[in-house]
Amino acid sequence: MRVFGTSLLGAGLGVGLALLTAPSYAADCAAGDARHFTVAANKDTVHWGYFSKDATPLIEVNSGDFVTMEALTHHAGDDYDRMIKGDDGAESVFHWTRNEKGVERRGAGPMDASVYGRGAGEGFGVHIMTGPVKVCGAQPGDVLEVRILDVNLRPSGNQEFAGKTFGSNVAANWGFQYNDLIESPDKREVVTIFELDSSGANVWAKPLYNFRWTPQTDPYGVEHETIDYPGVVVDHDTVDEQPVLEGVQVRARPHFGTMGVAPREADMVDTVPPAYFGGNIDDWRIGKGATMYYPVAVDGALFSVGDPHAAQGDSELSGTAIETSLTGVFQLILHKKADLKGTRLSGLYYPLLETDDAWVVHGFSYPNYLAELDKPQQTIYQKSSIDLAMRDAFRKMRHFLMTAQGLSEDEAVSLMSVGTDFGITQVVDGNWGVHGTVKKEVFMHR
Amino acid sequence: MRVFGTSLLGAGLGVGLALLTAPSYAADCAAGDARHFTVAANKDTVHWGYFSKDATPLIEVNSGDFVTMEALTHHAGDDYDRMIKGDDGAESVFHWTRNEKGVERRGAGPMDASVYGRGAGEGFGVHIMTGPVKVCGAQPGDVLEVRILDVNLRPSGNQEFAGKTFGSNVAANWGFQYNDLIESPDKREVVTIFELDSSGANVWAKPLYNFRWTPQTDPYGVEHETIDYPGVVVDHDTVDEQPVLEGVQVRARPHFGTMGVAPREADMVDTVPPAYFGGNIDDWRIGKGATMYYPVAVDGALFSVGDPHAAQGDSELSGTAIETSLTGVFQLILHKKADLKGTRLSGLYYPLLETDDAWVVHGFSYPNYLAELDKPQQTIYQKSSIDLAMRDAFRKMRHFLMTAQGLSEDEAVSLMSVGTDFGITQVVDGNWGVHGTVKKEVFMHR
Repeated sequence: MRVFGTSLLGAGLGVGLALLTAPSYAADCAAGDARHFTVAANKDTVHWGYFSKDATPLIEVNSGDFVTMEALTHHAGDDYDRMIKGDDGAESVFHWTRNEKGVERRGAGPMDASVYGRGAGEGFGVHIMTGPVKVCGAQPGDVLEVRILDVNLRPSGNQEFAGKTFGSNVAANWGFQYNDLIESPDKREVVTIFELDSSGANVWAKPLYNFRWTPQTDPYGVEHETIDYPGVVVDHDTVDEQPVLEGVQVRARPHFGTMGVAPREADMVDTVPPAYFGGNIDDWRIGKGATMYYPVAVDGALFSVGDPHAAQGDSELSGTAIETSLTGVFQLILHKKADLKGTRLSGLYYPLLETDDAWVVHGFSYPNYLAELDKPQQTIYQKSSIDLAMRDAFRKMRHFLMTAQGLSEDEAVSLMSVGTDFGITQVVDGNWGVHGTVKKEVFMHR
Repeated sequence: MRVFGTSLLGAGLGVGLALLTAPSYAADCAAGDARHFTVAANKDTVHWGYFSKDATPLIEVNSGDFVTMEALTHHAGDDYDRMIKGDDGAESVFHWTRNEKGVERRGAGPMDASVYGRGAGEGFGVHIMTGPVKVCGAQPGDVLEVRILDVNLRPSGNQEFAGKTFGSNVAANWGFQYNDLIESPDKREVVTIFELDSSGANVWAKPLYNFRWTPQTDPYGVEHETIDYPGVVVDHDTVDEQPVLEGVQVRARPHFGTMGVAPREADMVDTVPPAYFGGNIDDWRIGKGATMYYPVAVDGALFSVGDPHAAQGDSELSGTAIETSLTGVFQLILHKKADLKGTRLSGLYYPLLETDDAWVVHGFSYPNYLAELDKPQQTIYQKSSIDLAMRDAFRKMRHFLMTAQGLSEDEAVSLMSVGTDFGITQVVDGNWGVHGTVKKEVFMHR
């Protein structure tokens, strides 16, 4: 077991909790004072583009322990100078020369890129995931509670941009707009770079410039005509930077697009489609102050976090959010299956979000596509629909209201129609999402 | 032309603006001081279940005039004692004996009920619409702005329930849950009655009781095994009232489910499917303080309002909201086509909502199903999907951002992904809806 106790304070991240020294030995599950681990993001602490139940845990925590985890955006290569340069962690992850690649595998595909020739892992899965973190004693059937205690923007490591954080939004080939554009050229991918104040004091993300994607040749000599492999650093001599969205500001809602536990159904799972285990839910509510509950699927749970976002709208229409690097402070709490009966977590089979004022269930076109579909990791991309995701969100909200509040089905259905809201989480992640929200105020006198 | 100047103050509605006497002559379009009309709801001022470009206007207003309009819920018959009894207007509309029916036609279907035998109009369209109001000088291509200045609950006319307002939520056969229930019987319709404080001082709707629908025989002798014809008064000796949702409260968000102008494509149009002309959009944001913009489709615009709701969630899952009677105070402002160029209303081809802090576009599975489909009023019910409505909402939001803010398509797509939210308006109105919201703060410095 490897323990990563690199000081984050030195990186100026200013997380809200005191950072304790990480223990250098395997923890047992004995009760004791909560500890605070730290996991920096670098080439040795990330798994890029895949979840795996076979991944070697970086650390093992007890229920109640805290972990500060850095998460890097896989779109940092859209502006190397602003998002990678001078940042040791990001440089090590994105390092790629003719002879050397910091992280060889990117995606759950074959290492020899025998499908499309894009590169190792084929980009079947794109997110840089930090982890996994093993939770001592976690077993299938348990529920892992993840409290997001703090979220901070990662400052640019480039002194030229001190105090700034940058993010990239991509209107990509997998976006909802891609085959439905009215200006020419009718097939195009566009990168828009946003700037934020690293301190968070200014809550607005400001558009900086944009450019249309041009074919990029990676250091191994593969040409990427479209955005089809993560971590290809854009050569800015080949693109035309243009002013964009002048006078427009977007409210930052920093959150983690992809977070969850390892699925049980396959050894290598594409990070793009979300499902019961969490993953790429892309709900902007999964930010500071929120708590996620995941059904544990494998021993040790194997929690990972990645795909950090500065802001995203419901639907994530263009295919991405404002993709930016973040650091989160989490507390992990294990709820054993035997203790769930009679609680609101009883029978939880989906990722559940709790915020200060609401509960949010996450529905997907296929709640567990890995088990439901034939060749699931290929076919899911052709089979998604919002209609199916709404069906699933309805069933999950019914389950939640009947379980957590003891309502009858008739009561749950009525309340759903008059007092809960269903929104479109995303239409770009293979397994499309609809979330259902019920405010806690509804139950204030219950 | 008939003018309805019945005093609403006498009915204790307490609308927020002083009520002026309605003029008893046809107005020309000459400029002058804005007038304030009032239209009470009774059997002579409502059209039940249909829009018609041939309907006789109740009044004609000039741009800038005010109109106070009562709107009655078509679900009042679910609890006659609480929602009809002692209320002269509601009694006249719901009046139905073996020999006499206050409003014969209910729906856009045949008067002889030759399709299903349900009753005149066949219930192809269900909402009690007050209107139409003709807008002097309005022509196709213009835009009608409707400012909702005030919305008030309609108090029960029954002294036994003084100061209270009641509403009905129905989990109906057209609801999203109907073929997907887990408790038995597996096909059932459920009515839940809610109580509100008429003054609005208490913002909570409280569940009062529920019952399962039993076959109801109307005064003409037709048995309604399911809820298939509006205004059938439930015989409470045949149903089993049960306590429901104890300790649960639902925040009131009073709004008009169905509001809009007359469509041009047919003489008789079912009120259920919304489209470009507005109609049954069922967006709970269409309440006090909001403004709607509708593309005018026929001379005079012919504005009507109905389907009042005390509260509804995004999706209106069970098929209805908390259906309750409301009175609204509106100001109607006409924007002539020639004046639209260069304004944010230029080229508006869909119902647009403005609130204090946001703009909301409304997408539908078929933006103009009346023109797009063969036998549109029959087939729309089989053809809807949220996927199509999301496609339409994307295109409309793009149009709005490019028109109203002068963005390029690339700018609009990026902003849509990171700074606008798409939600599911309803999945129960034949032509399903998705709304896209962009906050005004985004443009604060533009």
